Amino acid sequence: MSVPTSTTIHPDDAAAVRLDREHVFHSWSAQAALDPLVLAGGSGSHVWDASGRRYLDFSSQLVNTNIGHQHPRVVEAIRAQASTLTTIAPSTAALVRGEAAERVLAHAPAGFSKVFFTNGGADANENAIRMARLHTGRDKVVSHYRSYHGNTGAAVVATGDWRRVPNEYARGHVHVFGPYPYRSEFWSTTPEQEAERALHHLERVIQSEGPTSVAAILLETIPGTAGVLVPPPGYLRGVREIADRYGIVLVLDEVMAGFGRTGRWLALDGFDVVPDLITFAKGVNSGYVPAGGVMISDAIARTFDVRVFPGGLTYSGHPLAMAAIVATLDAMAHEGIVDHAAAVGRDVIGPGLAALAARNPLVGEVRGLGVFWAVELVRDRATREPVDASVIGRVRAEALARGLLPFTADNRVHVVPPCVVTPDEAAHGLEILGDVLDAVAADVL
Amino acid sequence: MSVPTSTTIHPDDAAAVRLDREHVFHSWSAQAALDPLVLAGGSGSHVWDASGRRYLDFSSQLVNTNIGHQHPRVVEAIRAQASTLTTIAPSTAALVRGEAAERVLAHAPAGFSKVFFTNGGADANENAIRMARLHTGRDKVVSHYRSYHGNTGAAVVATGDWRRVPNEYARGHVHVFGPYPYRSEFWSTTPEQEAERALHHLERVIQSEGPTSVAAILLETIPGTAGVLVPPPGYLRGVREIADRYGIVLVLDEVMAGFGRTGRWLALDGFDVVPDLITFAKGVNSGYVPAGGVMISDAIARTFDVRVFPGGLTYSGHPLAMAAIVATLDAMAHEGIVDHAAAVGRDVIGPGLAALAARNPLVGEVRGLGVFWAVELVRDRATREPVDASVIGRVRAEALARGLLPFTADNRVHVVPPCVVTPDEAAHGLEILGDVLDAVAADVL
Repeated sequence: MSVPTSTTIHPDDAAAVRLDREHVFHSWSAQAALDPLVLAGGSGSHVWDASGRRYLDFSSQLVNTNIGHQHPRVVEAIRAQASTLTTIAPSTAALVRGEAAERVLAHAPAGFSKVFFTNGGADANENAIRMARLHTGRDKVVSHYRSYHGNTGAAVVATGDWRRVPNEYARGHVHVFGPYPYRSEFWSTTPEQEAERALHHLERVIQSEGPTSVAAILLETIPGTAGVLVPPPGYLRGVREIADRYGIVLVLDEVMAGFGRTGRWLALDGFDVVPDLITFAKGVNSGYVPAGGVMISDAIARTFDVRVFPGGLTYSGHPLAMAAIVATLDAMAHEGIVDHAAAVGRDVIGPGLAALAARNPLVGEVRGLGVFWAVELVRDRATREPVDASVIGRVRAEALARGLLPFTADNRVHVVPPCVVTPDEAAHGLEILGDVLDAVAADVL
Repeated sequence: MSVPTSTTIHPDDAAAVRLDREHVFHSWSAQAALDPLVLAGGSGSHVWDASGRRYLDFSSQLVNTNIGHQHPRVVEAIRAQASTLTTIAPSTAALVRGEAAERVLAHAPAGFSKVFFTNGGADANENAIRMARLHTGRDKVVSHYRSYHGNTGAAVVATGDWRRVPNEYARGHVHVFGPYPYRSEFWSTTPEQEAERALHHLERVIQSEGPTSVAAILLETIPGTAGVLVPPPGYLRGVREIADRYGIVLVLDEVMAGFGRTGRWLALDGFDVVPDLITFAKGVNSGYVPAGGVMISDAIARTFDVRVFPGGLTYSGHPLAMAAIVATLDAMAHEGIVDHAAAVGRDVIGPGLAALAARNPLVGEVRGLGVFWAVELVRDRATREPVDASVIGRVRAEALARGLLPFTADNRVHVVPPCVVTPDEAAHGLEILGDVLDAVAADVL
């Protein structure tokens, strides 16, 4: 059903490729070698080009279309708002903006009363860092090496992975190792020990940097692109305790993990932790219109009641984005989409990936929850040596040829379909992925 | 016609204010004292609330609705794209994205072949800075004290005005004074002398910083929020020569000045200068959907043909934003909107403001072109002492009460209506502004 069905190239697809190669500069890439997938439409868990090639979307694009492609209620809300009022200055008030803030805060922990809207996750983290620095009067931000927090001057340096290194122009960022039981930096043998030792490491770095110099600890609740690194029990609670001990603001980045991805409204709902600031984007309106933001706890909001907040952007609280947020969160609630994601993860994806891991020697570990999973591919299960990029390239190409759009990162395939993926679609995608990995394993191991 | 017509508050407006005050965190403000204008709809050069209060928009919101509010062609393009495909990953290709890049580049100087799309102007400048640093292998960015380049970690520090100071966390930014004949920093007496001395100052700072440490000179072609500081003849050509002399990348920020605002497609078309990178946002699609980007000259684009560009964002080349760009630029071309803006500036706004300056002692200087003008208010024409914030607050309140939505900054009123403002609307707005300034002058001088 989702196998590419055509080999005749539609003129629109040919034009898309030609214009793309001539004029579009792509992110995180050397430009000359790119061969981008063409997309022209989508619905639910599927996307397609104009030539009739159709793909089951196990990527949610950049892990953002939580509600699936082209949800009719969200599309209609965007169309209606477009006909009414597309854009207003951020200094004004508009009903749709207030309603969006109210909807977002309905999913925040108690004690959160305000939202600062941005264009996406990077500037959400930028502004959370700014709030934390001004609220505390301190400078440094501690984050994980294995993390991604966005691409602007502060956010990209808060980011821990290699994307930070060529961008290290902002100051005041310190990185620590987080828990990662499968590849421990702490010589631990159990998840509990991993959490305990990661907390010790975090606290020792903070003590060594000088606790009164640290404004914020900024962490993805579940590091996403870094490998869906679900924190072991006790870690986030321990981070909260350390933050409290030293008067540090705790910022949880829910840009990728939030709004249904984990089978909960926010990923932090699955842990015993309440942060001071929560950043979000992606799932809040599935990226139908660019938007992100910061949920602000009362204590930090009060700081800026009388003190000017020195940050802003033209499209803060953009009406189209706000209308998409209201419709998305209403539809997700009305249709039980978050619980659905939890069930699909528990009943289909989790067991399916466990079975795949049991039979395929390329699979070192699977981990995740909801519709947020990582499959680690290794050359050797004993040494856990990651497969190289050519293997991942081959997995990607074979999956696409079989009609599955995968999400790959480093030596991993992330299984991150929309929250609305049906059990049948999930099972079908896992079957394709299993076939691909079996074929590749037979060849490279 | 555009006077507020109702004093009964519509329930939607009451709800908008209540939700805003409870839950919406606003930019560049202390939150407790805010009393935001409510907006619920707009058309052309007018906006209104649900209670029937109607305003002639002399602000273009944040100087972005160049094509006016709710242009039917752009609204329809957004609605159509929403029904087809709202969002895709930036790594993919899509016809509408290629078409948008082609449309944008049609207005670039010769030698520009690629566009990197962002969410707005700040991340456009972020990525231009990143390109310049990697292309040159140098770090420092020289920009004007009187400037605004956006609010993220690097962009806000590139910004020159006070908004930089509480955000100075990024390194490598150096500021110089630019030309400003009315308030010269160079003891000049003519615009020509101002340009010459500003160039001397810029070159001396670069020599003193160490020319091989300077990656980029980043300037708004016409500094906007800083006061519509139209550069005197020879300045930008001289900056280009200095950049060439020292191997420095010249970035022109056209976020506010570009796409019709000055009565030309790009503001740089009015000067004898070709930069290496051009950043844009706002007018490119009038902010109907958040978007910005960098136009990249061939030499810099080639650097990243084989070298990975270490930057990106989820909503780069977002289909809704791209559809709005295509429709906006097509409609502006088809309807002659850029030439219209030039004519309204030349025939109505320019002469009208000159007449106002001639009769009202509060007006120190008027300057601008197209639909991009500043009116400097002073306590004393001889000393040029700026009026204080209370005077500007009063001007703003009186204008709103008379149905005119003004744009104010520091001691200035900027006259920045949409490019589609009719001669009658422009004349009517100037009449209101004149009445307001006459009343305020009579009172405070």
